[in-house]
Amino acid sequence: MGNKVSIGLLGLGVVGTGVIKIIKDHQEKLVHQLGSDVQVKSALVRSLDKERDVSLEGTLLTTNPDDILNDPEIDIIVEVMGGIDQTREYILKAFSTKKHVVSANKDLVALHGPELQEAARKNKCDFYYEASVAGGIPILRGITEGLSSDRITKIMGIVNGTTNYILTKMDKEGLSYDVALKQAQELGFAEADPTADVEGLDAARKMAILARLAFSMDVDLEDVKVKGISNISLDDLKYANKLGYTMKLIGNADFKDDKIEVDVQPTMLAKNHPLASVNDEFNAVYVYGDAVGETMFYGPGAGSLPTATAITSDVVSVIKNMLLGVTGSQHLDPHFDKQLKTADKRFGQYYVRLHVKDEVGVFSRISALFNDLNISFKRILQNPIIKDENAEIIVVTHQTSLENFQTALNQLKDLDAVIETKSYYKVEGDAEK
Amino acid sequence: MGNKVSIGLLGLGVVGTGVIKIIKDHQEKLVHQLGSDVQVKSALVRSLDKERDVSLEGTLLTTNPDDILNDPEIDIIVEVMGGIDQTREYILKAFSTKKHVVSANKDLVALHGPELQEAARKNKCDFYYEASVAGGIPILRGITEGLSSDRITKIMGIVNGTTNYILTKMDKEGLSYDVALKQAQELGFAEADPTADVEGLDAARKMAILARLAFSMDVDLEDVKVKGISNISLDDLKYANKLGYTMKLIGNADFKDDKIEVDVQPTMLAKNHPLASVNDEFNAVYVYGDAVGETMFYGPGAGSLPTATAITSDVVSVIKNMLLGVTGSQHLDPHFDKQLKTADKRFGQYYVRLHVKDEVGVFSRISALFNDLNISFKRILQNPIIKDENAEIIVVTHQTSLENFQTALNQLKDLDAVIETKSYYKVEGDAEK
Repeated sequence: MGNKVSIGLLGLGVVGTGVIKIIKDHQEKLVHQLGSDVQVKSALVRSLDKERDVSLEGTLLTTNPDDILNDPEIDIIVEVMGGIDQTREYILKAFSTKKHVVSANKDLVALHGPELQEAARKNKCDFYYEASVAGGIPILRGITEGLSSDRITKIMGIVNGTTNYILTKMDKEGLSYDVALKQAQELGFAEADPTADVEGLDAARKMAILARLAFSMDVDLEDVKVKGISNISLDDLKYANKLGYTMKLIGNADFKDDKIEVDVQPTMLAKNHPLASVNDEFNAVYVYGDAVGETMFYGPGAGSLPTATAITSDVVSVIKNMLLGVTGSQHLDPHFDKQLKTADKRFGQYYVRLHVKDEVGVFSRISALFNDLNISFKRILQNPIIKDENAEIIVVTHQTSLENFQTALNQLKDLDAVIETKSYYKVEGDAEK
Repeated sequence: MGNKVSIGLLGLGVVGTGVIKIIKDHQEKLVHQLGSDVQVKSALVRSLDKERDVSLEGTLLTTNPDDILNDPEIDIIVEVMGGIDQTREYILKAFSTKKHVVSANKDLVALHGPELQEAARKNKCDFYYEASVAGGIPILRGITEGLSSDRITKIMGIVNGTTNYILTKMDKEGLSYDVALKQAQELGFAEADPTADVEGLDAARKMAILARLAFSMDVDLEDVKVKGISNISLDDLKYANKLGYTMKLIGNADFKDDKIEVDVQPTMLAKNHPLASVNDEFNAVYVYGDAVGETMFYGPGAGSLPTATAITSDVVSVIKNMLLGVTGSQHLDPHFDKQLKTADKRFGQYYVRLHVKDEVGVFSRISALFNDLNISFKRILQNPIIKDENAEIIVVTHQTSLENFQTALNQLKDLDAVIETKSYYKVEGDAEK
């Protein structure tokens, strides 16, 4: 590598231009840390003619990936092009020619992380992807290094900025879901097609990556149960507030008795929970370790410069490893065989909102149904406002198994007094009275 | 080192026993990560007979430091004995015999960090001290690795659990300072002699260490300006709340135009600031980077197991470096020469509470005094409750230099209408109306 490290960029969108900008701006600091110049030698683009928001002096643009992947002078590939199948091929090729790879691609890492890790290890290459989870927050380092000697038993994350922005606006300003989504789109916090964000898939990808690292297990994307936010009504937010909770889209990964569960779902968090005050487009990851107890990492989950910062910090780690001759050494095989919890071992508290007939004895029948399943109530709200001659009942249960809770939901359908189960959500923590 | 790494413990108090416990509990995980057994071979203690809260099987107790420092089988010294002069000597001796050192000793690192770092570097030894700042929070790694490619321009930290506990109790439960302190002492959150905590010195030590790493500058403990919490009254907390602020003991380190300021002082934080909801004995460090924007690291600031976790994670880093043959490589000379901001370059907003004579024209004289110094008001509260025929005036200023503000405080003393300046505090952020 001499006294110059050359980087090849795959992709030159907002994050790619951010990487070029940060490396240029911090050249002096990088030289101080590393003793060598760091240069983006070339970048793979779709169009050579497009106007770019950064000076490209010293960087060659090309539409041919081989110009980068076959360039023997290039030491590190930074992949910010997105996509899955073709990108996977490029990265595998990079490893085969002994190039290190830094990626921000959560879709790819969630789906093919173990395979890519293995290819990197075989070729003594580094493969880092801090930017793939929670943008500018150095959470993967926090888990793999900072808490390396602890046993992490729980991770809860607000890992999608779009949904957190929408829920914050609904909660604080009373906007409807549709209006809040539109606002998020106008501000660039949501895509034109917001499905992957609002249906929880983006968060699921990040939770798969987090769970894999935290629990040292081959967690697959399909192991993550997902429920999105598109059906949340302002009524539920109002009741959540009344009960001392805040609604957040929470990614939850839990490890107990050698078994795990990973899911993403709208969750009513007690307002005194550290995650409850994470608002707008911010992200945060709450980590519970046996010894350390509660920790939380907070910051911007996306954005050109925060993401580019995480990428450049990964590049710095790779260069340090190159200088020390220890690339490829950070990869570990998973320590544990994956075992998923079955529904009878997944425990939680639940909020349920029911529309019921306004007649005598209704509540006692509902109460008996839950009671027969050993589910007891922690809070009960009977809505004094009666709509269309129906009444509304809201309960928050104590801990119960998911299996029991699903049985309760099924039995409620058959109960004549219940007109409709309007909504149900998982509840985390104890709200202050 | 063969397939066994031997540790010598200096000190076997609550943190030392925590280290033994964690290393034993996580032996399997450590072997998986490192491929070698990790064993606490011996521990320096004051008394051989004392009952200990951990199984000491396999660990030799000694009252003679040379049994550890001269033992050629010991690879890593973990220093949890505290103290300064003698401890410094032990650590220097450890480096001279090529032992790596992990320390939790903020007093020592704040005072002699650069000297110890240099001794480590010369001997190709590692010197890690994650546990010295904010206990279980991996903040030093966050700064030096996670944000390595960013330019950190501001750190604000709640880095003392004792004072945060006391302020939380005063604020939420209306306890007086004395009662809250006593409660903290009973719960083990405060020492019998609480001076170092409540007067801000403990926080100052941590801020010196943080500023040194974040700004790559030789920050000395004496560069840190300190004001403690022992004079805070419930009145000020009440007004803070009314104005939309929460009082916290904040360590602040600021870097601008190549100049820095570092201080610790009670600060009124806007309630929407991420640090404002950090309560009880918890710690958090808020980091602002040019590119990443706002990030925050939250967790337990003290406690046997959280601190021991940070220490053990450092031990894991040292062992990885030993395996890779790259110990001593993480030390960098400071990049910048230290330049401290003078009072005319230190800017802030301030809260001032005055007792004044209850007569016509008083407010306009006070207002003119500030106005002549180019200090304008952001908020004004005139207390309707008149005590002893005096009135109370509270103002929050816009940004002004510390120099101007100090001039204002001096001039207020000479103003006949002002009976007393009851209190003044720095203000951070904009409270929501």
